[in-house]
Amino acid sequence: MDVEALIEGVLAGDRRTVARAISAVEDDAPELEALSAGIYGSTGRAATIGLTGAPGVGKSTLAAELVRVARAEDRRAAVLAVDPTSPYTGGALLGDRVRMQDHAVDPGVFIRSMATRGHLGGMALAAPEAVRILDAAGYEVILLETVGVGQAEVDVAAATDTAIVVLAPGMGDAVQMAKAGILEAADVFVVNKADRDGAPDVAKELKQMLHLGEARDWNPPVVLTSATAGEGIDEVWGEVREHRDQAEASGALAAKRRARLLREAESLAAERFRAAAARALDDDAALAEDLVERRLDPYAAAHELLRRASS
Amino acid sequence: MDVEALIEGVLAGDRRTVARAISAVEDDAPELEALSAGIYGSTGRAATIGLTGAPGVGKSTLAAELVRVARAEDRRAAVLAVDPTSPYTGGALLGDRVRMQDHAVDPGVFIRSMATRGHLGGMALAAPEAVRILDAAGYEVILLETVGVGQAEVDVAAATDTAIVVLAPGMGDAVQMAKAGILEAADVFVVNKADRDGAPDVAKELKQMLHLGEARDWNPPVVLTSATAGEGIDEVWGEVREHRDQAEASGALAAKRRARLLREAESLAAERFRAAAARALDDDAALAEDLVERRLDPYAAAHELLRRASS
Repeated sequence: MDVEALIEGVLAGDRRTVARAISAVEDDAPELEALSAGIYGSTGRAATIGLTGAPGVGKSTLAAELVRVARAEDRRAAVLAVDPTSPYTGGALLGDRVRMQDHAVDPGVFIRSMATRGHLGGMALAAPEAVRILDAAGYEVILLETVGVGQAEVDVAAATDTAIVVLAPGMGDAVQMAKAGILEAADVFVVNKADRDGAPDVAKELKQMLHLGEARDWNPPVVLTSATAGEGIDEVWGEVREHRDQAEASGALAAKRRARLLREAESLAAERFRAAAARALDDDAALAEDLVERRLDPYAAAHELLRRASS
Repeated sequence: MDVEALIEGVLAGDRRTVARAISAVEDDAPELEALSAGIYGSTGRAATIGLTGAPGVGKSTLAAELVRVARAEDRRAAVLAVDPTSPYTGGALLGDRVRMQDHAVDPGVFIRSMATRGHLGGMALAAPEAVRILDAAGYEVILLETVGVGQAEVDVAAATDTAIVVLAPGMGDAVQMAKAGILEAADVFVVNKADRDGAPDVAKELKQMLHLGEARDWNPPVVLTSATAGEGIDEVWGEVREHRDQAEASGALAAKRRARLLREAESLAAERFRAAAARALDDDAALAEDLVERRLDPYAAAHELLRRASS
């Protein structure tokens, strides 16, 4: 499939082409740059929502429920599930989730697991491009679901307009999340499995920790849900909408998107530079030997690599 | 203090100058590159040992005991404790450890906590330079202690010749470590607090997981210790020595050090390039606007940043 057909198919919202385009991102395929350039003008319209939380808290069920609400409003929706720490797609990551299957036959819903088989810079750079493909294909609500609570997941969640952090009783404590920088990254907190013992305590602990933090323009709400029973979902949706409306009105959303794009371009350039530097060290045995034989220290070698890039 | 005096002081093994030099690394001070160049020829002599493991497993006590063994052999020893996830030095990180204080008055021992206040690329790039300073100052055994079990700690531990991973009963399971890539990074496993219930089980579980892995030239041993009672320390020391002797004889140590230096130079160059790219985007409002207004996609912007670096 040539790049022009790929671009046209994505812009026309053709599902198979969208799937191929996301595979091209996963593989860092040669056509990726032309694809990116071809669709970029048609992006920036979708509302993107991140879903982060420890395994087992019910992120997928919550995602399926949010898709249901979006569809009830007749908005096209996509779910992209990523594991930033794994180069392989867990085949079962989304496929065997019963609730997600409810949406599988709906042409207005696109569901996909994603891995980073070859993309330089990993998921933090691959995910935003995949989100843009879905955006260009006309999906108006895009949910980006990650599997863990580490720095990589925070980075991926930061690539969305509204970041939801999901917790559940007995599934990792708030202190651990605070350490990973997750509290700062969240726009909306969801305490799922609200029917279980301990859910109100988790919500209370969370509110106390948030209260200790600095005052901000937007104070992240804490919503109790029981996703399997469909309870609390409308409230989550309302808070996401409220966050988005306020961020749009205040200019915070535009500022966030701008910072995100600059950071992405900078990171893409740095990763490509790194690959070129690695090749230069591979190709130039003399430079590598100078380093190993302690004639040229690492900082001086870095200067030499930068000098070569600029000559 | 001028750079020449800094270099001379480090090479003479002057403790205060060594402390200042490590502070220069933490701050990414302007004199860092000249310092690095000035001491590099006098490095590569020390045996470097990484100590990684969850908080509370007893890494500091083990480090203090290993220092004791090194001193009994009349070898100068240094301990560098780093928290890769924190930009701040925990003042109490080492200072209040009783056993470490036993060494505080010994002129043949240097103890230091380290943070990354300003170093580009974080601890993964700051730690190797600090280790070289200690190496150039004549410390023959250098212990690099990290506080957690994440990817950042694995990266720091990889900067040493022999990586010890420390576990203890009830302190995080082996499966979690496997996910973080720690099993692959370890040359020697220590199960500390061997007097506690569950220690033999931890050792057994670990051996089973190691058995599942690929066969390698060096099969990491699992040593049970009770560091507070000084038990098992000689065996750990013996395994570290055995690992080092075998890695030296096979050429694995030279290959590891070579790969490490190439990777370090490449990363230093990439981080410096990234900083230059960020400045370029700051300085060139038109480029940033093209990106934000969707006239120039992130990949194309990255190309432009690379092009500018090479013109």
